[in-house]
Amino acid sequence: MAERVLIVGSVALDDVKTPQREARGVLGGSAVYGSVVASHFAPVDIVGIVGDDFPAAHIQLLQSHGVDTRGLEIVKGGKTFHWGGEYLGEMNEAVTHFTELGVFADFRPVLPAAYRADGFVFLANIDPELQLQVLDQTVRPRLAICDSMNLWINIKREALLAMLRRVDVALLNESEARLLFETHSLPKAAAGLLGLGLKRVIIKKGSYGAQMFSAEGTFAVPAVPLEMVADPTGAGDTFAGGLIGYLATRPVLDETAFRQAIVVGSACASFVVEDFSIARTAALTRPRIAARCRKLLDAIRCDPVVL
Amino acid sequence: MAERVLIVGSVALDDVKTPQREARGVLGGSAVYGSVVASHFAPVDIVGIVGDDFPAAHIQLLQSHGVDTRGLEIVKGGKTFHWGGEYLGEMNEAVTHFTELGVFADFRPVLPAAYRADGFVFLANIDPELQLQVLDQTVRPRLAICDSMNLWINIKREALLAMLRRVDVALLNESEARLLFETHSLPKAAAGLLGLGLKRVIIKKGSYGAQMFSAEGTFAVPAVPLEMVADPTGAGDTFAGGLIGYLATRPVLDETAFRQAIVVGSACASFVVEDFSIARTAALTRPRIAARCRKLLDAIRCDPVVL
Repeated sequence: MAERVLIVGSVALDDVKTPQREARGVLGGSAVYGSVVASHFAPVDIVGIVGDDFPAAHIQLLQSHGVDTRGLEIVKGGKTFHWGGEYLGEMNEAVTHFTELGVFADFRPVLPAAYRADGFVFLANIDPELQLQVLDQTVRPRLAICDSMNLWINIKREALLAMLRRVDVALLNESEARLLFETHSLPKAAAGLLGLGLKRVIIKKGSYGAQMFSAEGTFAVPAVPLEMVADPTGAGDTFAGGLIGYLATRPVLDETAFRQAIVVGSACASFVVEDFSIARTAALTRPRIAARCRKLLDAIRCDPVVL
Repeated sequence: MAERVLIVGSVALDDVKTPQREARGVLGGSAVYGSVVASHFAPVDIVGIVGDDFPAAHIQLLQSHGVDTRGLEIVKGGKTFHWGGEYLGEMNEAVTHFTELGVFADFRPVLPAAYRADGFVFLANIDPELQLQVLDQTVRPRLAICDSMNLWINIKREALLAMLRRVDVALLNESEARLLFETHSLPKAAAGLLGLGLKRVIIKKGSYGAQMFSAEGTFAVPAVPLEMVADPTGAGDTFAGGLIGYLATRPVLDETAFRQAIVVGSACASFVVEDFSIARTAALTRPRIAARCRKLLDAIRCDPVVL
């Protein structure tokens, strides 16, 4: 039986433009991307905030995936976080057109009592001071994973470091890890993060895949090769959701389980980018995820060299 | 017993500057980087051209590695190809300060009769018309691998395509593969190359490792994580030299052998960048290469996921 997974982050409506298509007001936000995919593995408790402009159908969709939405605060008369952006060329990075924080500007995460003992916690990218407030409300989770972003490294470095010292695993983009330790060397940045007391550091490299660093060495997977990427939005949070959801099913959280979880997260991320919003991940099944994991594992399989 | 490996390319003297150090007039060139490392696996025949300013010690060094230098033309009164460049920041790409082609401008590769039946051929990056001339002088090698560069894609596209249709494996940088087929998608570029009749396409991604595409699927390895890169010059040619050298030891050139060879090539490339020129690869031993291959294989090892 899988343990419960707590996911705290943004719940948003997105306007997304790509070289091929455009979508307006679609369901987005780090907590949504993470929760939908994690729900295929484990029961999920979401904590976020929306305005009363947030369509009830979106909440019903989360609930239909078994996501407990008691932690989703709905502010009367408030506006939901609204992001608009565009991907160009290789679509590695979004150009933001607008960010209307709405009620998200005043987000103060409060965990319903039933969430506090959740064994698995994913702190998606929010202000590290809020991430610390969430940790204060939890009861020794078996595993706490955090994400962050350049903004907090630049303007809330001390709070970010304090938060990193209290979680087990940091999930960061390559450029964020480098920025945090002001180095061009990824192994050096990873060593810096492990030096804070983190057990593992997982570096997201976009279309180049992901790499984990720990005292037990390093593990790297490529991204699942895709002919066509429709929309990269949510890839990182879907990776995180698949990773923590899978880990919540595992009896032992060792190197083996984490390596498998990175493969699962990569497989999940490869689905979400094939369409806009959560269209693909909402419709997933475990056998389809398993099939893509096998495809990815086949892409890194190698016999010992004969020397 | 390993078969003979023919390597055709540049033989050069390099001036290299990095954020840490600077070296002037050191031994370089694609054929040199490839030959030195391939010599740890198989007997090598080199074809290249130098001026009589080329130090005899460099030729002796090649010979001390069992490299047959009868194919190295020495032009009386001529100047050896001299390249000067600098690496900045993450050192992913060199900024060229000068390129003095010297005798290399008139390079017309002629294979000594003893080289023509070599079973393994690596055509390093030279004018594709010259690569075709080399192929014309060979007698059905078991394996022909080519490299190329943006310059030839831009100014000699037809000759390049003709050459690609006559080799078994293309080794290209990611940006070159994308440029050749004018696509942002690496799988599409790889499919385009395979469509030319190539059996395999191996894409070099610098610090992100390498990825092979074939009818049998894809295989990806990360680069060996290094705390410090002294000088990236020659990494791609060293990868190629290790790859073809290893393959020359294998009885069957199947998917298994190619996957192993990519690991060997990556291991060799991880050595060459730890110092300038061929300082590290000249001093290699098979057990040291094998140890680094095990390290790299450990970084991609993963059990099946439990779903």
